[in-house]
Parts: sequence; structure tokens; C-alpha cells
Amino acid sequence: MLIKEKVTQAINILKEFKIDCWLTFVRESSINGDPSLDYLIASDVTWHSAFVITAKGDSFAIIGKYDKQAVADLGVYKTVIDHVTGLREPLQQVLKQINPSSIAVNYSKDSEIADGLTHGMYLTLVDVLSEIGMQDRMISSEKVVSALRQRKTETEVGLMKEAIKATLQIYDEVFGFIKPGKTEAEVAAFIRSRIDARKLGYAWDPSTCPSVFSGPDTAEAHYAPTERRVQEGHVLNMDFGVKYNQYCSDLQRTVYILKKGETKAPPEVQKGFDTIVESIEESRKAMKPGVLGKDIDAVSRKVLVENGFQEYPHALGHQVGRFAHDGTALLGPAWEKYGRKPFLPLERGMVFTLEPRLTVPERGIATVEEMVVVTNTGAEFLSSPQKELVLIKP
Amino acid sequence: MLIKEKVTQAINILKEFKIDCWLTFVRESSINGDPSLDYLIASDVTWHSAFVITAKGDSFAIIGKYDKQAVADLGVYKTVIDHVTGLREPLQQVLKQINPSSIAVNYSKDSEIADGLTHGMYLTLVDVLSEIGMQDRMISSEKVVSALRQRKTETEVGLMKEAIKATLQIYDEVFGFIKPGKTEAEVAAFIRSRIDARKLGYAWDPSTCPSVFSGPDTAEAHYAPTERRVQEGHVLNMDFGVKYNQYCSDLQRTVYILKKGETKAPPEVQKGFDTIVESIEESRKAMKPGVLGKDIDAVSRKVLVENGFQEYPHALGHQVGRFAHDGTALLGPAWEKYGRKPFLPLERGMVFTLEPRLTVPERGIATVEEMVVVTNTGAEFLSSPQKELVLIKP
Repeated sequence: MLIKEKVTQAINILKEFKIDCWLTFVRESSINGDPSLDYLIASDVTWHSAFVITAKGDSFAIIGKYDKQAVADLGVYKTVIDHVTGLREPLQQVLKQINPSSIAVNYSKDSEIADGLTHGMYLTLVDVLSEIGMQDRMISSEKVVSALRQRKTETEVGLMKEAIKATLQIYDEVFGFIKPGKTEAEVAAFIRSRIDARKLGYAWDPSTCPSVFSGPDTAEAHYAPTERRVQEGHVLNMDFGVKYNQYCSDLQRTVYILKKGETKAPPEVQKGFDTIVESIEESRKAMKPGVLGKDIDAVSRKVLVENGFQEYPHALGHQVGRFAHDGTALLGPAWEKYGRKPFLPLERGMVFTLEPRLTVPERGIATVEEMVVVTNTGAEFLSSPQKELVLIKP
Repeated sequence: MLIKEKVTQAINILKEFKIDCWLTFVRESSINGDPSLDYLIASDVTWHSAFVITAKGDSFAIIGKYDKQAVADLGVYKTVIDHVTGLREPLQQVLKQINPSSIAVNYSKDSEIADGLTHGMYLTLVDVLSEIGMQDRMISSEKVVSALRQRKTETEVGLMKEAIKATLQIYDEVFGFIKPGKTEAEVAAFIRSRIDARKLGYAWDPSTCPSVFSGPDTAEAHYAPTERRVQEGHVLNMDFGVKYNQYCSDLQRTVYILKKGETKAPPEVQKGFDTIVESIEESRKAMKPGVLGKDIDAVSRKVLVENGFQEYPHALGHQVGRFAHDGTALLGPAWEKYGRKPFLPLERGMVFTLEPRLTVPERGIATVEEMVVVTNTGAEFLSSPQKELVLIKP
């Protein structure tokens, strides 16, 4: 079972980083969930709950009475303790028993996936730990949580391959649907109908999953598809992902709508598309364990600039996992909002998107997004990459 | 539009509490959402974003470039500022312009719905505010956020009435479905099929929405329905809610499965059910603005104990709204995990469940859950209350 696999992995990561224990502390997880919870239990918790994993291989779940049976059924936790009025005492007892020199908790300025602890719950934890003199042992779990999410197991990569396969099949179907006169919203609705028909989830909110942008002067990415009509001579791009057993894909494809009489795209469109493909391929070839994300991002930008295009105002690629945007390490520039993310080295098992973007004046936006997995020696495509511009007949 | 209505209400609440401004600070809200975000925008945000509402009636959205158009389209914010590399500078500029003596931010030890700020984001905010000397002006927004969620507008109560109506219709349908030999899982699947047929959402995770408990010795609440079969002479209870335009219902109903030859429930079952009904009615009658939640909870328990039943190990009732468990004020006992929630006074517009529970030995668990709204002078049922035990023919 995936949870057992990931909890075992967490124990090994704690050993590797010489961190005595990892504590996830949540309440009413359907309101304020912690992204780490998906690796720890298969359901929501209602009352204050703590999940404690130790480098020595112990595992404790301290949970509300009504959640006990469901957590015990997982067969993952060596010790399951339930409470009715509050978890302060049982949590203190467990920590006194472990007596860890460091307690990794889920907060991080740089990484949202390691930042599931709310500030109110942090203050509660300070109270609980202060009473047993352990308040100064808290450290950020960013390294632990990042490694756990980023080092994908074979099971996880397998699930993502299924998500990618379905996404590419749906792209093949939509290429046959797009015609001059269809609206962006109609193209998006067609894609959603194909996702629904396969009983898959959406990788992000369906209002912008898919995004569809047709022609020049469109709104920026993340904007819902409009009533704008597909038009001859325009470039159209789409961006969506599906969720298969909780694991996401995230892929973009670009098409050109031929004008009557045209048999191929005009040179500037072809050049834009080819530049994107080259940018992706050069970036992928530069990827391997140990390289920093910012240096891969720079490879991609260099290809665009050398071909006379402007840099795009976002990162080259993010990790993918249970969320479309997952993990901590980022293939991005050293901008304030990215914090330390672009300065982290790539590791085997990380799954990234590669998604450079450029504008072809008067035509639209060319952007392709592929997914790759970092291997021992480089990076391999998980998606069958788009190498040819898809031409839509007028 | 509801967002405009709630932002206007927020401004009035800030005036009432003499708090200069309310700041909601989020990033990647599909990963770590803030429950207040639903009242501020209609979609997720990706990059670091801040929503600032002031007692003077100003409103600022500082958001990532790609989210700008969607937020501007809302027509709610007087000022919409976008950023590409980071929001530190624009946020500092806005705050210097307002120069608030207090900045309410979303953290709370007591209330999860007011605790959307993660600890990592809190630390980032401390950095941003320190540079402009405002780090000591931060206060908890618990009062503001609680009032905003709890004081339901007519629009909101109207949406909840629709959710309740659909829920009761589905209960009527399932009463005809339950028969000896059906499993709990089959009853649950039937309810889910009726929710799906109405194109409604689930008030909480479908794995336990509905919950179905049949007979004695069942697992505790919050446990998924099992293969246990409905049996003559047993009490069966169900717990589910739907989501209608983002607003929830949460209702429980109890039925008795007649044995062959029986025309009514045995006396101990009838007494258990009647005690629940009486407990709910006495609690409702005691509710009015100004009364503390813990005192209503005590009314309910008293009825059970006086009738010879044990107290239940949870609160009498929680608020309902966009979440099945919503708001801060709670009709609950003074237990550690509930913090100050039971000590808050009721206010007009709060919507609560009333859900006492008791065990009828050898028969099962009797529990009914109604929903009431606090009025100027008391509390009114929003649900048509179950006054008669539903009898299922053998």
C-alpha cells in the first residue's frame, strides 16, 4: 500500500538526515489540510491529531476517538492512541518516551508543500512542548517532507504515467475537435467531457483546467476559457492535467489553424514552435542529479533569447505529484517569491514539467509543456513529446 | 454577488470591532488554502497573494500577474496590483499608505476557520512587516473571520435551505430503500447515487458521507459504511450532508427495523428516540443571542442523563456553512480541544446543528441531527425535524 511505502521511506529519510522525529499536527483537515497528510493516512481527521514518525522506525498516531478505527485499519502505525477531550497529554507522553533531540514540524517559508502547519496550531504546539521543556527542539521539516514528496517511488511514477497517457489520448481527441468558429469555452468543455468520460479527476480547479488560449491579445495564463472563437491564422494553446489515483499530469500542447490554401504554418509560427521544442530538449539534456534548478531554467531562457524571443515571466518547470505544482526544488529563476527553491539540487525520482512560453506577434502564444523524470544520469521524458506543430485544417 | 456582499460585511465588521485592517496572505491556495479565501475571491491563487480590507472601506488585491484578470473581473477590489517576482514591495506600499494601527491576520489557536495562515507564511509576513516597522501591529483576525462566517446573510441562509431541502428529500427516498439484508455500504451507495443524480456536492469526504451505522457494536462515528447487513430489531442511523452552491447541510436520521409481527418499536428503542427528540427541542428552546454554547450543550446532556442515558463524547452541535463544521462558537462542553469555542455567545444568523446521541443496548445508536438558525429572540428549525421514529417493515 502506498501509505505504508511512504511511511517506510520517511523513516529512511529521517535516518539519512539524522533527524530524530517528524511530527505532523492537524485538526479539521477538510478545512485546513496539511499536504503531508496524504502520505500519512487515507482520510480526513476531525479533532486535533498528531502523527509521529521516528528515525528508529517507530510510528504513532494520536487521534480523535471517532477517527481511531479508520487509522488502525491502515495497519501502518505501531501505536494508535485515541482521545476525547484533547491530545495534549498523550502527545506529551509519546514525546517524553521518544525524547528526540530534534522534532521536525511542517513549516517552511520557501516551500508550500512543507508548510501545512497553521500558525495557530504552531502556537498550540509551542504550548504543549513548553510544558515538557521541548519547545526549542522544533525544526522545519522542509528537507524531510520535500525528499518524501520528490523522491517518487516506482508506484508513484507508475500512477503518473497513467495520468500522462490519458492526457495525451485526450489531446489526440481534441485535435480532431478544434475547428475555426469553435469557442475557447467549447474546446475546454470538450476536454472536460473526455476527462469525465474516463472517470478521472482534474489536476487543478476545472474553471481553468483546461486553459485554452486562442490567438494574440489573450488574457494571461490561469484565466478561464472565453467565448473567443478559434480563427484561421491563429496559434491556439491548451493546458490541462488529470488526476489518476491522486497523481497528476500537467501538459500543454500548441496547434496552428491553417488559413485556406495554407499547407503549413507561416515561418514565424514555425520558428516560435521550433524554438519551444529546442528549449525543452536543451533543458532536458542539461538535467541530472546535483544540478541546480536555476541553471536549467537559464538554459531554456538562453534558447529563447538567442532566437530573438523575450523571456517568459514564470519558471521553466515545477515538480508534479499529488498536486499539479508539487515538491520544493524548482526549475526557476532566482526571484523573491521562489525563495530557495531554484537553488536546490535535482535528485533522482523528481518529476518536473518543462514549459517555456513565447509570443508570436499577431498569431498567439506558443507553449508546450512536457513532463520528465530525473534518473541517475539525466532526465527522461514521461510524456511523448510534441515535436511537430499540430496543423488544424480550415 | 456573494463575494461583494461578504466583503462589504467584512468592512462593517472591521468598523464595529475598531480594527483598521484585515489581511489575508496566501500562496498556492490549492495546496494550502485559507478558508477565508472563499469570501474574498472565486478561485485559487498560485503565487504569493494578499487581500487587504480596511475599516475605511478600501480593498486591495495584490496578486500574481496570471491571476490578475480573474480577480479584476470580480469587480470587488478597488485596487488590484499584480506582481511577477514577489509581492513584498507592493504589499509594503499598500500598508504604508493605510498605516493601520492593527493588522488582523488569519491565525487562531481556538478556531480552525480563522487559522488559514501557515506558520511559514506567518514568518514571511513578519519579515515583510519588520522592514516597515509594522511587525508588532499584527493581531489575530479570529473575531473578524468568525463574525463574517457566522453572521449568515439571507443569501447564505437561502442556499443552506436548498441544501437541507434536498437532504430531506433524499432521506425520504432512502427510507423506502432500507430493508433487512441490505448492507450499510449499499444504503450509503444509494444515498450517494441520489446526491449525484441531483448534481449536488458532498458536505464532507464521500468515504464517510454518508455514514451508516446499523445495530449494536458498530464502529464509532466517522467510520466508513461496512458490509454489515440491516437486521430486524436493530436501530440504524445515517449521517450525511450535501453542498449546494458551496453551502452545506448536515443532518442525521434514525430508523428502526421492525421484527416480523411488530407494529411499533420496543419501548427501550422508542424511549431512546424520544429522549433524543426531547433533548434537541429543549436545547433549541434555550438558544438565543447572548447565551453561551456550553450552556446549551449542558441542557442537552441533562435530558439524556435524566432519562438514564450516558452523555455522548462530542459536542451537541457545531455551526454549518461552507464547511459541514464551520464557524467558531460551538454548542460544546469545556474540553481542552474546544478551547474558547464553547464560551462564545450565540449571535443572530448563526446556523447550528443539534445532534445528541445515545446507545440503546442490544439495538444500536439513536441519533438525530437537526439544523437551526439563531434569530433575534431564539432559534428556528431550518430542517423539518424528525419527531417520529421511522419504522422499516421486515
